[in-house]
This record gives sequence, C-alpha cells and structure tokens, in this order.
Amino acid sequence: MANFGFSRLSVVSPYDVAFREARSAVGAAPLLHKAQEFATLADAVADCPLVVGTTSVGHRELQHPIRRLEYGARLMLRALPAAPVALVFGSEKFGLSNEDLSHCQWLMRIPTVGQDLSMNLGQAVALCLYEMARDPKAAAARPGKIRSATAAETEQITLRLLEALGKSGYVNPVTAFSTDEKVRRLIRRLEIPARDVPVILGMLRQILWKLQ
Amino acid sequence: MANFGFSRLSVVSPYDVAFREARSAVGAAPLLHKAQEFATLADAVADCPLVVGTTSVGHRELQHPIRRLEYGARLMLRALPAAPVALVFGSEKFGLSNEDLSHCQWLMRIPTVGQDLSMNLGQAVALCLYEMARDPKAAAARPGKIRSATAAETEQITLRLLEALGKSGYVNPVTAFSTDEKVRRLIRRLEIPARDVPVILGMLRQILWKLQ
Repeated sequence: MANFGFSRLSVVSPYDVAFREARSAVGAAPLLHKAQEFATLADAVADCPLVVGTTSVGHRELQHPIRRLEYGARLMLRALPAAPVALVFGSEKFGLSNEDLSHCQWLMRIPTVGQDLSMNLGQAVALCLYEMARDPKAAAARPGKIRSATAAETEQITLRLLEALGKSGYVNPVTAFSTDEKVRRLIRRLEIPARDVPVILGMLRQILWKLQ
Repeated sequence: MANFGFSRLSVVSPYDVAFREARSAVGAAPLLHKAQEFATLADAVADCPLVVGTTSVGHRELQHPIRRLEYGARLMLRALPAAPVALVFGSEKFGLSNEDLSHCQWLMRIPTVGQDLSMNLGQAVALCLYEMARDPKAAAARPGKIRSATAAETEQITLRLLEALGKSGYVNPVTAFSTDEKVRRLIRRLEIPARDVPVILGMLRQILWKLQ
C-alpha cells in the first residue's frame, strides 16, 4: 500500500493476537499503526459511496458485474476525487463471503491465464494498487536517450581498429579496401555511446602499442 | 508466472536443499518441475539476445539505462516474438550483484512512491509479469451493460409506490401533485435494472396488501 501511495487500511474482525503483534512490531509501517479495526464490513465501508469487492474468476457471483482490473481501476480512479472508495479483499483462504459481497456495488478480478488464480493476498493487493497508481503515459514515454558518439569519434575508433587489424596481419592486402568498408560499417552499426569512446580508444591504443 | 502465461523458469545456483524440496513437493506447479538450474547467470541467459535486470530505485547503476515497468514491458514484448528475452531477478535480500548487472542490457524498475521499495520477490515478479500480460485495450473497454427497466416498468413501480405512500398517509393531499412528480423523478434516477423489476413490484404488492 505504501509503495503505491495508499494510506488508509481498515481491518474487519482480524485475528486479535496476530493483528496486535503486527501493529506493535518494531519497524511496522506507519500505515499498519494507523490501521483501523472494525467489527463488521458495513462499519468499515460506511463512509464510502463506492465499495468494490475482489474475486478470483472461479468465484462467480452472477448478482454482481465483474470487471477486469484494467477497467475497474479506471472506474475507481474516476470516483476517487469526490469521495473515498473501498477496495475489499477477503481472507487468503476463503476470499469474500456472500454476505461480504452483498455490500459491494461490483467486483474486480485480476485477469489471469486459466480459471485458477493461485496468488497470495499480498500479490493480489500489490497488483490492484499498482494498476491504480500506474501511469498510462509512462508506457509510451521514451527514456532519456543516451548520447551517441559523433561521426568524428566513430571514425577515430574505426581508424585505430583498422591500424591494429593491419599490424596484426588480419587484413589481406589484396582485399584491404573492402575490409576497410566492412569495418567502417560494422563500427557504425554498434552505435557507440559517446561516453564509451575514451575507453575504446584507450584499449586500441594499448593494443597498438603492444603490436609495434 | 503460470497466472500470466509465462513458462520458462531458470534458477541460478539455488540453495540446493530448498530448491530440490520445492521442485519435488506434492502439488508443485509443472513450471517448477521444468525449471532449469544453471551454475552462472551467463549460462542461464546464453540464448537470449535481450537480458533485462530488475532493480529497486535505491540501487542506482549509472552504467545502465533504467526504465519504468510500464515502458520496459513494452520494449520486452516488442523483442519477444523474435527470440527469448530474459528478465532477471536477484535474491530477495540483496538483489542483483554488480556482476549480475553486467550481463544486462538495461534495467527495469517498478514505479513506487518514495525511494524505498519494500516488496517481496513474489510481489515484484507478479507486477512485472502482470504488466507484460496486461491488455491495454481492456482499460478502455466497457463491460456488458445491464439492461435497464423499460419506461413502462418504471412507471408501474412508480404507481405502486405512490399508491402505498398514499395509503400509508405519507402523502399530504394538498401537495399530492408535487409529491407525485418528486417520486417519479426519484424512481427514474435509480436506473432500476430490468431483472429487479419483478422483485420490487412483488415487495410493493405485499406492502399494499398489508396496508389495505
């Protein structure tokens, strides 16, 4: 929850000992400290105009519209600026009961391959909150481009390499001209980043020195 | 992995006892049975033209471009039809070592609030694979619309309710006409689903019968 910027955790009739221990543990997240405890789901969601349940595909409640996470998250975000929205998760073992579901307007499911969702509660929560916090624009964004070497720098590397190849006996004098062209094209296909130019030149200089 | 349709798991120098036990456990996923074991990361990713590491924001390796999950997943999907892509996760405690990172073309990070990613390995894997399996079209899709009651059905409910309100003494005879209008508008705002019409009429019929 904290990873994705959500701060209000409500817990309905938790197993007392475990909940108290988790809350008072050294290093417990502030979020867990502030978590509110309620006796019933109705109490926990009382101030939320929109209450959304979560379900695995297996659990088909025909009474409720079931929406895929990608779409359901958008609907919740649209409702959120106006008033709190409750996203309800059941216990890891049994999920939400029919009584729990009767407090929900609609249900959300994580789209998975096949019918059996074998996922723990922590994973399911992380996926739902990630989808809500996800930035659709970031999918299309281009990361900062790495500056490529200039043509002059690329040519400098090409010439040093050709010199080393010549001295090492790699270049056949008869086909030397076509080798030049091939090496020049090969070096350009690499799109060497500008910052790597000094290192590569240094390597070639050292090899050339040894070859002399 | 199975939830999101990924099938090839490679494990690099796992803790032997734990790995063997997990693999041979009753009910272990077929995916775990087929998991391949490698001595080094280089061996594990040998057939992959694209090798992507994962990192928390804290772990800044300036040597590598770091891409957000939303964008990195697109890049991997684009590379995938042609050849296998390796997505590399480190141990939960230490992440990937610098040696591991040197085998990666670029790194991917899960976008979180703040710098500290406190997420377990299972959650991180689930999020990365969800983003790759996610259907961008599903975010815009409209779910099957629930058929609303017809105007005739809505009016039938309105008339029954007005009758019950009249018989119960709710309606002030002086303002009866304006009450009619208010109730009519109220009922229409509810957008009653077609399938709920018989239940609502049944309730009103029973109340009317008792009021007589």
